[in-house]
Amino acid sequence: MGKVLTKRSEDFSRWYNEIIKKAELAENSPVKGCMIIKPYGFSIWEKMQAIIDKMFKDTGHSNAYFPIFIPKSFMSKEASHIAGFAKECAVVTHYRLKNDEHGKGIIVDPEAKLEEELIIRPTSETIIWSTYKNWIQSYRDLPILINQWANVVRWEMRTRLFLRTSEFLWQEGHTAHANKEEAVAEAIQMMNIYAVFAEEFMAIPVLKGIKSESEKFAGAEDTYCIEALMQDGKALQLGTSHFLGQKFAKAFDVKFTNKEGVLDFVWGTSWGVSTRLIGALIMVHSDDDGLVLPPKLAPIQVVIVPIFKTDVDLKSIISKAKEIKDELIKEGISVKLDDRDTHKPGWKFAEYELKGVPIRLALGPRDIENNTVEVARRDTKEKEVIANDTVVDRVKVLLNEIQDNLIKRVEEFREKNSFSTDNWEEFKEIIENKGGFVRAHWDGTKETEEKIKEETKATIRCIELDVVEEEGKCIYSGKASKKQVVFAKAY
Amino acid sequence: MGKVLTKRSEDFSRWYNEIIKKAELAENSPVKGCMIIKPYGFSIWEKMQAIIDKMFKDTGHSNAYFPIFIPKSFMSKEASHIAGFAKECAVVTHYRLKNDEHGKGIIVDPEAKLEEELIIRPTSETIIWSTYKNWIQSYRDLPILINQWANVVRWEMRTRLFLRTSEFLWQEGHTAHANKEEAVAEAIQMMNIYAVFAEEFMAIPVLKGIKSESEKFAGAEDTYCIEALMQDGKALQLGTSHFLGQKFAKAFDVKFTNKEGVLDFVWGTSWGVSTRLIGALIMVHSDDDGLVLPPKLAPIQVVIVPIFKTDVDLKSIISKAKEIKDELIKEGISVKLDDRDTHKPGWKFAEYELKGVPIRLALGPRDIENNTVEVARRDTKEKEVIANDTVVDRVKVLLNEIQDNLIKRVEEFREKNSFSTDNWEEFKEIIENKGGFVRAHWDGTKETEEKIKEETKATIRCIELDVVEEEGKCIYSGKASKKQVVFAKAY
Repeated sequence: MGKVLTKRSEDFSRWYNEIIKKAELAENSPVKGCMIIKPYGFSIWEKMQAIIDKMFKDTGHSNAYFPIFIPKSFMSKEASHIAGFAKECAVVTHYRLKNDEHGKGIIVDPEAKLEEELIIRPTSETIIWSTYKNWIQSYRDLPILINQWANVVRWEMRTRLFLRTSEFLWQEGHTAHANKEEAVAEAIQMMNIYAVFAEEFMAIPVLKGIKSESEKFAGAEDTYCIEALMQDGKALQLGTSHFLGQKFAKAFDVKFTNKEGVLDFVWGTSWGVSTRLIGALIMVHSDDDGLVLPPKLAPIQVVIVPIFKTDVDLKSIISKAKEIKDELIKEGISVKLDDRDTHKPGWKFAEYELKGVPIRLALGPRDIENNTVEVARRDTKEKEVIANDTVVDRVKVLLNEIQDNLIKRVEEFREKNSFSTDNWEEFKEIIENKGGFVRAHWDGTKETEEKIKEETKATIRCIELDVVEEEGKCIYSGKASKKQVVFAKAY
Repeated sequence: MGKVLTKRSEDFSRWYNEIIKKAELAENSPVKGCMIIKPYGFSIWEKMQAIIDKMFKDTGHSNAYFPIFIPKSFMSKEASHIAGFAKECAVVTHYRLKNDEHGKGIIVDPEAKLEEELIIRPTSETIIWSTYKNWIQSYRDLPILINQWANVVRWEMRTRLFLRTSEFLWQEGHTAHANKEEAVAEAIQMMNIYAVFAEEFMAIPVLKGIKSESEKFAGAEDTYCIEALMQDGKALQLGTSHFLGQKFAKAFDVKFTNKEGVLDFVWGTSWGVSTRLIGALIMVHSDDDGLVLPPKLAPIQVVIVPIFKTDVDLKSIISKAKEIKDELIKEGISVKLDDRDTHKPGWKFAEYELKGVPIRLALGPRDIENNTVEVARRDTKEKEVIANDTVVDRVKVLLNEIQDNLIKRVEEFREKNSFSTDNWEEFKEIIENKGGFVRAHWDGTKETEEKIKEETKATIRCIELDVVEEEGKCIYSGKASKKQVVFAKAY
């Protein structure tokens, strides 16, 4: 079969790459750092998109589309923004190829040089705020609540499928508001929407918090984020929502007349999640036998595998299998019946385990005799034989149970891998040997944050929104601190 | 109001641009040749996408995603392909910006030059076939039926919103097959799917045919297409489906072992439609008062406008309007209730006419008294006053009637503007003064096609699939010809 995976405990990173390959989610492309998302992987993204898109629309947002190109001068207008992105910008300099006159084949036509270079969007604040300038005159034009689904490019030196690729797919919301309170509320609302999506659909519990100065988005006043813990004890940022203040409005001179007739700069937010979410899904739930998918995001929720030796068996089994399939589809469940005779049932069992299909139904000659079916769940590997006429109800219950079990399991794991300490040696020891989230006091300075990162590789993942204030001392500097923050090694 | 449009009869092209602007569909961006698709325009694209995507999936296709970058050497592998696209390729040459040491601000870092330049995909045959090489060994791996929704870039010198922009959104299907018959059948199937979409949803009747050698896709054996007639008598190509033969398989060395155990090159197709479809929708149906949308693609199918002078009126009117809205929504109809008190009813009437909302319901004090509602349809401007309790049924009937009326109207227009001639002088006269589709005999040579284009600006739109063979003489050269082909001036 050649389907066996490296164990997580042996080499987590290799296991991750093997799952992606063997479950046919994605692969590296001939273009360095860019990935090809294969149909099975893409169908997970489509499920995510549909749910998230609806959540956006239910909260009053509309989709639109802005150009992929950003003039270099636009990128440069907001100082911290360009500082953050300059090193990873793909630049278009020419617009034509031609046949080389000296027979060297196809070359870039030196005469087709752009007057101003164009950057491929790493994110679209600049092109969008340059447009909002024309759309906004008065408070009556506000708020603007726009999202776009798009590809973006950030030239990365060290890439990893789904987690960090030079091109990736994402959504980016960009909103404009008449006052600070509304913009902050919007940024928090979107963080909460991401958290609900992570928990209810991805079955991944998250911490909600705010980034430290050095971890926040290049161009934001505040970055809200959701952070999750992977099975190897490292943290992954799943989504961010930025309160931009008036920074981009000032950079692009976007003013409006408020209700009092006074001219003021517009307030902004931006927020995004990307195909990275698929990386999280893999690293949080999957096991040594392959992908484990939460039923709410599984492209195939139920697979039916007929087990037969003779053609006579086959006919009656497949006819029964089709009946079950139709009944399940009627209930809105996505079902695949794999009746290929080119592969053995055992091969198929392993294949759908690798692909993380939540429920497998198997039907053999004895099941036909007894009017039964074997039901196996992917998460616990438990099997049971049940009466045929109870299949639909059982599957419906099981899909919910699996969804619930996944998040419960992850919550327990996170609980076990969350620590709190006031002792620097212990802090280092936990980060080094156990991983996980480590809550500790911090003096609030960039310098201390830097030092801790240098010495332990741990970064501040977030300052939790619901943290309880208390008197404490910074784990590193010993200076006074009002609250613990969350440290972890991160992707 | 400032909402008045130039008349079509005065300046069609200006009318087109004004509709796009005033109906808030799209606008030019600060990046030359690229457009911003505004929320209302984008919501039409979303409706189109959802329907087309389902048609693809119902015929066994899956979505995937390939990189936006294509190495220059890949683009060059298929000779006619690169010849066709070389002149419009946007080229990425660098991957970093930096601060100029001489204080000139942000510059492209000369040290971050790519070893091989990357082309922004103008279409993805090359990157996809280079990938298929790894996916295909045997006939068991075939067919591959993949589509992607993506942005593409073709550097255009003369651009026009929706019709021809440097960046546009589209879908591109790329399939691989074990034999010629299957690939040809796939190409024809996809052309037919496009035709069904155009006729059933866009309410646009189309000609189905094959392109002449000089009009076919750069890299195709045959290009199937659907062609529609605009109100100004010019033709617009709505979609194309290419039978690629083994061209890309040969360029990328994609071979498979067939059922007989013999190694052969794989057969291919590709097919696409783009945001250009929105341009067609505008140019086919709209009138001097604005956009006219077929109900099946209208983001808002029904708008309800309350008409009131006093606050007392307002309350009862809005309560009734909400009732009607809810009833319509229950039937799956998309409804907007515009109860803003910042705009007068007359302004709203003009606004929703401009935006092409198929049905407008107006409710005034007298309607409340009489239990009536005024119903106005956008296509014919007819109004009627009907009893409240018949609104839902009437709206359902009207939506169908409008959809049917639109295509009927366009069919009649096309009928009136389709000509057939064997006389060169008459041919020139029709093309020059009337426009429309002109069927005429052609000797099949590139030279004649070229001459006709030079002298009349008309091109061969397609050789219809259902054309009846007959003995004839080429309209230009007088040489023998077996069938008429369709000429027109085209966008």
